[in-house]
Amino acid sequence: MSKPVQSLGEAFASTAYPLIGHSRRNVNVLLESFNSIDGEQFSDMYGNGAVIEEFQSQIADELGMETAVFFPTGTMAQQIALRIWCDEIGINQVAYHPLCHLEIHEEDGLKELHHIHPILLANSSRLITLQDIQSIDQEIACLLLELPQREMGGQLPAFEELVAISAYCRAKGIKLHLDGARLFEITPYYKKSAAEICSLFDSVYVSFYKGIGGIAGAMLLGSKEFTTKSKVWKRRHGGDLISLYPYIISSQYYYNQRIDKMERYYNEAVELAAMYNQCPGINTRPEVPVSNMFHVHFEIEIDKLEPILIDIYEQTGVGLISYLVDEEGLRCRTEISIGERYREVPLDILREALALLGEKLEKATKHKSEQGE
Amino acid sequence: MSKPVQSLGEAFASTAYPLIGHSRRNVNVLLESFNSIDGEQFSDMYGNGAVIEEFQSQIADELGMETAVFFPTGTMAQQIALRIWCDEIGINQVAYHPLCHLEIHEEDGLKELHHIHPILLANSSRLITLQDIQSIDQEIACLLLELPQREMGGQLPAFEELVAISAYCRAKGIKLHLDGARLFEITPYYKKSAAEICSLFDSVYVSFYKGIGGIAGAMLLGSKEFTTKSKVWKRRHGGDLISLYPYIISSQYYYNQRIDKMERYYNEAVELAAMYNQCPGINTRPEVPVSNMFHVHFEIEIDKLEPILIDIYEQTGVGLISYLVDEEGLRCRTEISIGERYREVPLDILREALALLGEKLEKATKHKSEQGE
Repeated sequence: MSKPVQSLGEAFASTAYPLIGHSRRNVNVLLESFNSIDGEQFSDMYGNGAVIEEFQSQIADELGMETAVFFPTGTMAQQIALRIWCDEIGINQVAYHPLCHLEIHEEDGLKELHHIHPILLANSSRLITLQDIQSIDQEIACLLLELPQREMGGQLPAFEELVAISAYCRAKGIKLHLDGARLFEITPYYKKSAAEICSLFDSVYVSFYKGIGGIAGAMLLGSKEFTTKSKVWKRRHGGDLISLYPYIISSQYYYNQRIDKMERYYNEAVELAAMYNQCPGINTRPEVPVSNMFHVHFEIEIDKLEPILIDIYEQTGVGLISYLVDEEGLRCRTEISIGERYREVPLDILREALALLGEKLEKATKHKSEQGE
Repeated sequence: MSKPVQSLGEAFASTAYPLIGHSRRNVNVLLESFNSIDGEQFSDMYGNGAVIEEFQSQIADELGMETAVFFPTGTMAQQIALRIWCDEIGINQVAYHPLCHLEIHEEDGLKELHHIHPILLANSSRLITLQDIQSIDQEIACLLLELPQREMGGQLPAFEELVAISAYCRAKGIKLHLDGARLFEITPYYKKSAAEICSLFDSVYVSFYKGIGGIAGAMLLGSKEFTTKSKVWKRRHGGDLISLYPYIISSQYYYNQRIDKMERYYNEAVELAAMYNQCPGINTRPEVPVSNMFHVHFEIEIDKLEPILIDIYEQTGVGLISYLVDEEGLRCRTEISIGERYREVPLDILREALALLGEKLEKATKHKSEQGE
């Protein structure tokens, strides 16, 4: 009897040890975070009320920023940050990396809604350097840096380079904005507090559903004047919901639970990437992770890799990866983010799964070269 | 011993019988709606997945529209609707009532983000008529009608007038958009189904936290082509959250529970407005409600009315109203929305509270006229 064909995602979801992230994205994520909440707790009302103000104050304090505003999404928060800086400086031009979220994941909202023109610095194979910024031959209101650069596997500049970029921007009157979707996740590598990193920036966005593992939600931080303006734009965007508490309470719950685990996630990412790099035809990017994330690049076609992975999931119970992205029909890649699930996998079983992957890839590659391909 | 000074809102909140709306806006509203939900229920993912698609289909079916898209807010949904129609027609001009939500509650998002110019029809004391529309001497892409007109106490045109407006707009190539924040609430008065009302419009927005009493959330409905475009704009606005299920599940729960109670809420609003109109110096707007809402106008200063109301709350346990808005230091007003709470108040106690209000107002007025004021 032949088994029904399973997708990689389905096979991953049915393993005993799925390796990525914190948990399944199901309703229990919400319910767990509300377990210890008093049902009489009053809702926030259009951005006001204890439930939102206390969490905003907590994060502002921890990031060493004057004020914070909770937003439904980073997409909204970051467009608004750039708009405020453009309006303040009086220039409708900013600079960022060509792989930044605003450029590739937001349907050009920045251009279509705010008429802000981005200058793209560096390219898909390297990070923005101080020299790139010094070479801009047009006026810009703001430079956006994403730390770590997610679409490059989560890479970081040296902290000294950041300091130099910040000093240069301040001297030139260029506002510096941090896309900190994964800010909490980089503090162990930099050996800096989030506040030390944020002190280099004029405005900061952080997310609560990446390393923190909340349901959704973001914050935008900056001076009182900056965040006051951001609330007006939040309403204009349609982001000033009467109640945001389902996201606020869950964000705060998982923040408090996981903020001190970022070093563990980072160390585990380094450990797992090293195991992947032992396998023939596999490279991680970066080779040694600098946060809880990295990309895995496979020198094999997606159609050949998928059945190999599903086999391994069935043999070992380890769900190594949940999806693959094709690269020109020749190679493929995936993204790994380490969260609570990683340490649920016994290390010997994980090693077995990766050893099996190495063997199967070697066989597939050998077969390929014997065929003279 | 003197009692601590209480605000009207605090006094209202501590009554045994608060009369307005469905319940306190607390976390229990969320928790109740998740009581019967399987914790393993998978999240929606950026607008896809069973939890969002099934509810969108349900509402599209019930409103007789081709497709529906869930939005975090009506502010976002409606700006997007007008933008789509303006782009399609190639005219950056629309028409609506000067008291419509976009004009007075959205920090001019329509103008600041979409550069759409509104032509204001009618005025704060009357609804838009067919004649107003026929008299527009400039080209417009879209006419927005709000049913009922909330800021006028929730007033409605005759259904025949709506039919005539719809026919005129279709003949002239003007798109007709419905601000149906309180659409479900007007079906009993019109004696029409929501679908019959929607059939007059090209696009429709409905809300799930007014008469329905959800936590937040809205839907935008129209043709497949229209809603497909709206999803692109939703992402641009930052409204395409990875998970919207806390709002979707609660909206669907309260929709299913209350959609058949709209006639009761409407009848109760008519009953309560009649009681208010018995009191000297009180008028409701409209005099006879046409939905579950109306405004109450008091011919007395806010500072004099508040202690009278607080007295009544303490004597009878009935929380008549929760807030007052000053009108030129001479009069004041409030808004009443009927929901589940109304029938929890025994009718004799409610009558007693309103009789007491009448007496106290009569005394206050008499005192005023005796003083020759």
